Amino acid sequence: MTPPTTGRVARAPRRLPGAPASTNAGRELSAGVPVEPGTARIAVDLLGGDEAPAVVVDGALRAFDADPDLHLVLVGPPEVADGVRDVLPPTQRHRISIRAAHNVAAADQPARSGRADTSVRAAVASVAEGAADAVVSAGATGATVTAAALLLGRWPGVRRPALVATLPALAGPVVLLDVGGSLEASPATLSRHAVLGAAYASVAHAVVEPRIGLLSVGTEAGKGDRARRAADPVLADQPLPVGGRYIGLVEGYELGHGARADVVVTDGFTGNVLLKAIEGAYAMAGGPPASGGAPRAAALLGIAGSVVVCHGAARGDDVASGIALAAHLHRRGAAAAISTLLADSGRDIRTTNTEVTA
Amino acid sequence: MTPPTTGRVARAPRRLPGAPASTNAGRELSAGVPVEPGTARIAVDLLGGDEAPAVVVDGALRAFDADPDLHLVLVGPPEVADGVRDVLPPTQRHRISIRAAHNVAAADQPARSGRADTSVRAAVASVAEGAADAVVSAGATGATVTAAALLLGRWPGVRRPALVATLPALAGPVVLLDVGGSLEASPATLSRHAVLGAAYASVAHAVVEPRIGLLSVGTEAGKGDRARRAADPVLADQPLPVGGRYIGLVEGYELGHGARADVVVTDGFTGNVLLKAIEGAYAMAGGPPASGGAPRAAALLGIAGSVVVCHGAARGDDVASGIALAAHLHRRGAAAAISTLLADSGRDIRTTNTEVTA
Repeated sequence: MTPPTTGRVARAPRRLPGAPASTNAGRELSAGVPVEPGTARIAVDLLGGDEAPAVVVDGALRAFDADPDLHLVLVGPPEVADGVRDVLPPTQRHRISIRAAHNVAAADQPARSGRADTSVRAAVASVAEGAADAVVSAGATGATVTAAALLLGRWPGVRRPALVATLPALAGPVVLLDVGGSLEASPATLSRHAVLGAAYASVAHAVVEPRIGLLSVGTEAGKGDRARRAADPVLADQPLPVGGRYIGLVEGYELGHGARADVVVTDGFTGNVLLKAIEGAYAMAGGPPASGGAPRAAALLGIAGSVVVCHGAARGDDVASGIALAAHLHRRGAAAAISTLLADSGRDIRTTNTEVTA
Repeated sequence: MTPPTTGRVARAPRRLPGAPASTNAGRELSAGVPVEPGTARIAVDLLGGDEAPAVVVDGALRAFDADPDLHLVLVGPPEVADGVRDVLPPTQRHRISIRAAHNVAAADQPARSGRADTSVRAAVASVAEGAADAVVSAGATGATVTAAALLLGRWPGVRRPALVATLPALAGPVVLLDVGGSLEASPATLSRHAVLGAAYASVAHAVVEPRIGLLSVGTEAGKGDRARRAADPVLADQPLPVGGRYIGLVEGYELGHGARADVVVTDGFTGNVLLKAIEGAYAMAGGPPASGGAPRAAALLGIAGSVVVCHGAARGDDVASGIALAAHLHRRGAAAAISTLLADSGRDIRTTNTEVTA
């Protein structure tokens, strides 16, 4: 099988001068090598993930080697963190700091993950306390969301943060949300995802005037289940930041092609099964394409800080991608920039959020 | 990229003696070469599909060459059908018959597709009249369903037929339903899909004691949106035909891996976007794997006859796959066998269907 021709659709007119080409933005998330300068201090939850700490240590070392401006705050059992530092050349060990934590957060159930001494809580705390710029965990998403909401705070009006993933499609990166933050598909929630997705595409991927599509079973108006038919007109009326434009309904192909939409909006249930099905398809195809497969790292939107969650089944290179994504988001000041864009978008978005929280 | 190792998981114990190996069953749907003997007379809607009649003619000729026991009833403009017959060797032309039809069915809206003289109606009529054994159309699904329900009839208690697609996963074929027949996700509908899927896996793919999974965002009980949480216990109590076993929740990976489930049950909205997203992923990966990608042909379950719908964007080889699937289903007597299995499963399924129609 030949690798896909990337950049088949010219995207230059849609990008800011100096912004990474879309295919690089795609590669960035999969190969985990951000090109922007500036120190990034990333807190890494050594105990999060099905195969922690081994794969997290592997990922941390890969990210460390790939990005000379990266500093890591390794949060977990000191003996594990010491082991990581010991394998580094003495001249590099100053780029590692260690925060002790011994308990793994409970399964993906926020109610049960409230204990204060888990590794994910300690990792988020290092951001809250200013010792780190962003946090990465491959542990239970619910536990990470709970810790982040508690210690970093939510954006005004956001009840449940959204998880956003970027897929490297043929025509450039496609931002997909929600991939598991909130599973219900109310028009207000989908409308909020459109706003968040437009802002994220602009800030994280420098997409100019992002095109927003609502995922459905056909492109003609009226296609879809009750939730999509109800949401379509709501999204059409929803003012979008950064010159974002709602283009109507898109189909599943869009996640691989990316020709019509830069942002694909759906509910967290559909987005989550989609992302995993695409991963399964790449496994079936003999591995992800050279330019990157389904991302195993997603950014949490709605939290006042840079939080990246990796898939529980993440491998070392997935964790490295998550760390690279966290560093990328910090270097772009993503959390603050997106939060400002939402505030500037004014009344309508607050209304949407009020509906969501009502 | 190297093609995937197929048959990695030994499936022999799960198959009937003499049944095609699972990987062949997968290949069958993609390469369109059924191995079972017996004449199959397939009515082909020449006017269905975005690029009809060109791609349909191409597909018909591919299927014709691949299967010496195939007879085609070409339904559409006589000049197009004559053209097909004229390119065949004189000794083969007896395997083609022609039924004139000049009108394309309206877009995917049953209400508007009621006119009696469309090509899809004429194609279905040739099955109803005994001139063909099965029908294939790449036209609007709604129009095909309407024509099939009207001229062939529905199974008792089935309000909306389900669309079932087979994906060639690493461990063998995975039956996915619904992929667009009915878009809502009530427990009764998902429970009916479990029954239909078990019967289809047994009849179409000779899977013994099929394992049925409900698609969700995690495998632990309680994972998922309201619809899945409500459906999970209903499926657990639902008696299944052919020794089928409900294994609980499965994630999207299952569609590529197939290690845990032979049948993945979901609502028609999720199934439809999933199938198209997997197709987009293969496009991104540089093409489908050697053993077949996302199927562009799906069988209609709930109709008293063998009806196969192809994707509107079907290419020639997709139409050929659809024709091969229709021939395969006819040769296995699938419609009658599945309908009998449902009737034998008795009260519980009728109850489910009653709930569905209520």
